[in-house]
Amino acid sequence: MIGITVIGSYIPEKRISNYGRKAEFDIDDYFIEKKIGVRQVAVKDESEDTSDLCVRAFERLVKKVNIDKNQIEVAAVVTQNPDRNIPHTSAIVHGKLGLPESCASFDISHGCSGFIYGLSLMQSFMRENDFKKGLLFTCDPYSKIIDKKDKNTCLLFGDAATVTLISDKPCYVTGKFTFGTIGKEYKELSCADNRLYMNGRAVFNFSAKYVPEDINSLLKENGLSFDDIDQFIFHQGSKYIVDTISKRLGLDSKRVVFDAYDYGNTVSSSIPIILEKEMAKRENNYMVLSGFGVGLSWASVVVKKFQEDIK
Amino acid sequence: MIGITVIGSYIPEKRISNYGRKAEFDIDDYFIEKKIGVRQVAVKDESEDTSDLCVRAFERLVKKVNIDKNQIEVAAVVTQNPDRNIPHTSAIVHGKLGLPESCASFDISHGCSGFIYGLSLMQSFMRENDFKKGLLFTCDPYSKIIDKKDKNTCLLFGDAATVTLISDKPCYVTGKFTFGTIGKEYKELSCADNRLYMNGRAVFNFSAKYVPEDINSLLKENGLSFDDIDQFIFHQGSKYIVDTISKRLGLDSKRVVFDAYDYGNTVSSSIPIILEKEMAKRENNYMVLSGFGVGLSWASVVVKKFQEDIK
Repeated sequence: MIGITVIGSYIPEKRISNYGRKAEFDIDDYFIEKKIGVRQVAVKDESEDTSDLCVRAFERLVKKVNIDKNQIEVAAVVTQNPDRNIPHTSAIVHGKLGLPESCASFDISHGCSGFIYGLSLMQSFMRENDFKKGLLFTCDPYSKIIDKKDKNTCLLFGDAATVTLISDKPCYVTGKFTFGTIGKEYKELSCADNRLYMNGRAVFNFSAKYVPEDINSLLKENGLSFDDIDQFIFHQGSKYIVDTISKRLGLDSKRVVFDAYDYGNTVSSSIPIILEKEMAKRENNYMVLSGFGVGLSWASVVVKKFQEDIK
Repeated sequence: MIGITVIGSYIPEKRISNYGRKAEFDIDDYFIEKKIGVRQVAVKDESEDTSDLCVRAFERLVKKVNIDKNQIEVAAVVTQNPDRNIPHTSAIVHGKLGLPESCASFDISHGCSGFIYGLSLMQSFMRENDFKKGLLFTCDPYSKIIDKKDKNTCLLFGDAATVTLISDKPCYVTGKFTFGTIGKEYKELSCADNRLYMNGRAVFNFSAKYVPEDINSLLKENGLSFDDIDQFIFHQGSKYIVDTISKRLGLDSKRVVFDAYDYGNTVSSSIPIILEKEMAKRENNYMVLSGFGVGLSWASVVVKKFQEDIK
């Protein structure tokens, strides 16, 4: 059985406070705390590239679990902000970590739904190729493409990286996935000429419409009810979108995590950063993970506790 | 059973002749015909972007087979030259083709090994998610990043796109795959600041060393011998690398295709362009497909004829 064994996360120490930008952007505490839910955003050092952040996440991982690099059979990076367009960042990470020649590597280009896509792609790729150990990285440092004067994006997005060890010694295993795309609306969250553009209203409306429908479908597909789910981990698009989706689904706030106050919306890393913490609690039997945004797209999955300890 | 049903290819009509550049680059007919094996390179129109080339390939596909777009459950694009970094090009293609909302979409960032990675990832993703019909696009228009004065790259690379219908009505099915990465050598074929760099000698040496070893492993893994294979379709890196690999494996030239004379090295599209033609012949029972390059990486697979006709 292949599944999620353990997660390592790296959030850069450097922060930019939104409280310090209230005058510049004409925002107040309500906006900071209740609307976006981001008090400060994490920002990588300028000298750090995407592959470096992935390496930092790996350093966190190996503090939690012994990993023999020679046993890693595949390394994948989910990113839309690679070091370079050629090669894939996973090849650069492969070189920096000194992974074996027999190790496959590929990047998945996806945004806020990227961790869920990555989970499905990695697990199925590993099962088909009879691999036992793989590393799934997420890293999308939007500080590379954010216009510091753009209120719609600069107050919201933070930098981070995560790495998930997928192995035959899982702590959590996945149920059925759901996916969807509204490609014709892709321009609402896009990057041209190295500058991020977001129509916050359009992305909000998309998410508030499609994600609740998707969660209902997901539970039905998995033969589960809302009462079966201990935690709902939604992509941390903003406090307001997480609250809105929760409200539309009638979810008690105790079962919904919002955690991005002190680092921001970290795109494909938002879900694994929280999942790492929720897995450590060892008390959740079933969790729903749901990503949505860039594409426009959504992707969701149910994860189920498989065993108590990492063997 | 999921497998390859049919392939559509699009090679732009516009060509740049290498014979017309002999003086500029101090090259002769021997270099053009025997070393690189590229008489002319295909170049897309400046107004066409990566997603447009994918749409053209899809138009070729639907001339060969009836496709109900509403039945497409996943669309993936293999590219390292996307329209934009955000979103993934597959979302843009999804919008342009009018694919259904329930259709998953993701991009795979990979180069010359990309079609093989794409095959494995798409098929395994489809099997795990119980999908019956998916579109795997390849498109890497290097004309976007080539310095027209760089002899190492501008004479070699051509633009193209392909789309492979993966479905439960396969004509060819895959055996076991092999993969490998030498990430520490990634700089030998890379792109920084929108300019392609290639150390031709280093990439040649890498390919001539690792690919023959890999083909031996691949056949062993699949329980096949060289005599079982009707055609070897190698990535069309250059005439000289295909000849060298063939020679090292002791392969008769009748069983090795070189086809890039009139369009060039089309990166991830090089193998499916040839596979389309070889599948049409309906006479090959077993074929080996092997990609190598960007990463540096390799990926190979055996495909086996499954049925005569598209049902």
